[in-house]
Amino acid sequence: MGFTTTLSRSAGRMRPSPIRELFKLIQRPGMISFAGGLPDPAIFPVEAFADCASALREHGTVALQYGASEGYGPLVEILRARMTPHLGRAVPAEEMIVASGSQQVMDMLSRVLLDPGDTIVVEAPTYPGALHTFRNAGARFALVPCDGEGMCTEALPAVIEHCRQETGQAPRLIYTIVNFSNPSGASMTEARRRQLAEVARRQGILVFEDDPYGDLRYSGDPLPSLYSLAGGEGVLYASSFSKILAPGVRVAWAVGDPTLIRAMVVAKQGMDLCTSMVSQVLVAEYCRRGHLDRHLATIRGHYAAKRDAMAAALATTVPGHLAAWSDPTGGFFFWLRLVDGDAATLFHRAVEEKVAFLPGPAFFPAGEETVGPSEGGSGFARLCFTFASPEEIAEGGRRFARALSVAGGSAPRV
Amino acid sequence: MGFTTTLSRSAGRMRPSPIRELFKLIQRPGMISFAGGLPDPAIFPVEAFADCASALREHGTVALQYGASEGYGPLVEILRARMTPHLGRAVPAEEMIVASGSQQVMDMLSRVLLDPGDTIVVEAPTYPGALHTFRNAGARFALVPCDGEGMCTEALPAVIEHCRQETGQAPRLIYTIVNFSNPSGASMTEARRRQLAEVARRQGILVFEDDPYGDLRYSGDPLPSLYSLAGGEGVLYASSFSKILAPGVRVAWAVGDPTLIRAMVVAKQGMDLCTSMVSQVLVAEYCRRGHLDRHLATIRGHYAAKRDAMAAALATTVPGHLAAWSDPTGGFFFWLRLVDGDAATLFHRAVEEKVAFLPGPAFFPAGEETVGPSEGGSGFARLCFTFASPEEIAEGGRRFARALSVAGGSAPRV
Repeated sequence: MGFTTTLSRSAGRMRPSPIRELFKLIQRPGMISFAGGLPDPAIFPVEAFADCASALREHGTVALQYGASEGYGPLVEILRARMTPHLGRAVPAEEMIVASGSQQVMDMLSRVLLDPGDTIVVEAPTYPGALHTFRNAGARFALVPCDGEGMCTEALPAVIEHCRQETGQAPRLIYTIVNFSNPSGASMTEARRRQLAEVARRQGILVFEDDPYGDLRYSGDPLPSLYSLAGGEGVLYASSFSKILAPGVRVAWAVGDPTLIRAMVVAKQGMDLCTSMVSQVLVAEYCRRGHLDRHLATIRGHYAAKRDAMAAALATTVPGHLAAWSDPTGGFFFWLRLVDGDAATLFHRAVEEKVAFLPGPAFFPAGEETVGPSEGGSGFARLCFTFASPEEIAEGGRRFARALSVAGGSAPRV
Repeated sequence: MGFTTTLSRSAGRMRPSPIRELFKLIQRPGMISFAGGLPDPAIFPVEAFADCASALREHGTVALQYGASEGYGPLVEILRARMTPHLGRAVPAEEMIVASGSQQVMDMLSRVLLDPGDTIVVEAPTYPGALHTFRNAGARFALVPCDGEGMCTEALPAVIEHCRQETGQAPRLIYTIVNFSNPSGASMTEARRRQLAEVARRQGILVFEDDPYGDLRYSGDPLPSLYSLAGGEGVLYASSFSKILAPGVRVAWAVGDPTLIRAMVVAKQGMDLCTSMVSQVLVAEYCRRGHLDRHLATIRGHYAAKRDAMAAALATTVPGHLAAWSDPTGGFFFWLRLVDGDAATLFHRAVEEKVAFLPGPAFFPAGEETVGPSEGGSGFARLCFTFASPEEIAEGGRRFARALSVAGGSAPRV
């Protein structure tokens, strides 16, 4: 008889990512994948980044030693300077923390803000990784619907009020991806940003502005950050190098009020002490050499072409009576509303056709963890256009349209 | 009126590291520091490590992309092969996880094992970072005394029984640093290891064998791991590159039963998705080139000389009626019992003399978070011998002895 491991109640709340499960199904030869939200490895700045290893020599005793939980000083300075225009103010060092990816920002925030049973307002649909982290902290979710202009903020006061009535307290947090949301691809209009900032301020609810895609705009003008609209009050802003440089570095940053940041620093000491100093020194050197802005210009062009390829592929192959969508102006994703409303059947048809996407339900919390009305999400599909090549996008579009026509036609409902 | 951030109950439990506070006091010119538990940066393999950046070129699309939460495949293979002798069996891949430092192993384990109010058996004294992480998870602590041969395992059954009586349930975990403990420097004898493994097995309590110093033995023969004595059952084993290569890489690993490791993988997805791929690729390349074993031979010699320097410095300067200690046979630390029993006064005297150490209380949980008898730890001092140079160690020893003579003589008690 072996030892039996009994897990905690919080472990019982955790769910393996539905996306991980789906990925097992799509690891097949010949599969064209629009499923993962991955940057294109073909455009990683491998040479320029590896060249920065000279900084590991130059700053070796710092890069290889323990670092401050707050982040590597020179990187913090670079980020502070970089953020000033977008945040509308020069952020003091004690209002910034470097994290091991945005996922860790969510986790730090969960630790210092959430008690089990607290409610978080999220967009429906939203990023599954956020649901995962918040769920692990015992959170429940109140949903605000979204359309092509992001969160429908006019619904926000009623959602908050409903939460107060049902749970006896206000939501602890409003989580939003304002620019080129994962999965919807939509950006919140300025009017809605102002409304969101105003509602949050009036009700005293912290906003978490998660902005990994903000620099990946392919057309139109940038919109002001929620942080800047709120004058830096009551908003935790976070962004990351994952989408603009490389996810493998696991370096992100967050900006917020000093009380919150200090608590996150203390939490981080118990989580990983500090973010990889090797990664931070390399990323700082990459920025110091001026590579980041050049690389951003390159990937904007590269991804815009892929966005165009997918827009063309879908427009020419997908019948309008089967699905509806808007072409995104930035980010990584197309978000399709399926007239048929059956993403699960479509997923299996698509895998047979050797094209993969992510079905909508991954982006919505389950009914039992929702405060107020829930939404299954089976009427949606997320297609990532950054990972596949333009040729794959064209062919994948044809396969997707075939799967949709079959599924939307005679497929049995499950 | 600005926005006010209200933190969670769990944030209320968190305490800024007492060590961080002390470090502010010792940042003075001319200070000789035995305080931090830091590797010697003078011996970091800066050139060899930076040369490994060729792997960032060769494996760039992997190093810069998201990686598996379980760890980078080639690094996992290296660690599995490396661990087999010490663990007494070939560990299957699904029983290993790579983490962003041992601190993250503790955090992942806390997430999947602990519910607030659970009790953990720890050595008194023990590593403050472990107390920090477990405390953040709402744990309480039951203390087992230690002597020069590590945890006094003969006291363990009574500690467990007391915990059952006081809390109504058995401890959830026994946390131990079996080799060259931080802070005590002691290694548990083989007889005690067998007794610990047997008690844990009989009572069905998981053991966390934290082993960052195991490879840093300067004399004597290695002892079997708890994991191997337990036949791999009921023991989570963890080690790290922090002390044997460089803390700045933030790469550690854990080995445990597949249920526990799988739960930790799911938890990690919500914590940082994966450990820095850049760090993992560099570390794997460093190991693949055979650098690690050569470097280990070098640092063993380097640190043994420093250990000898501190042993000589203390033996020649510290009067035996003021403190008692044993010379460690590995690791980073001397642990002194102060006959005077007043580490706080001694610390301030020492800082005046421009030598720093860590007072004992940092290594003991507070009374209110302890199940059963507590221990303030004011009768102890930890001196790290790896960071300072041999000359600083000699001079620092003289200063420490002066501080001790003053404090132990006529100093007022506070």
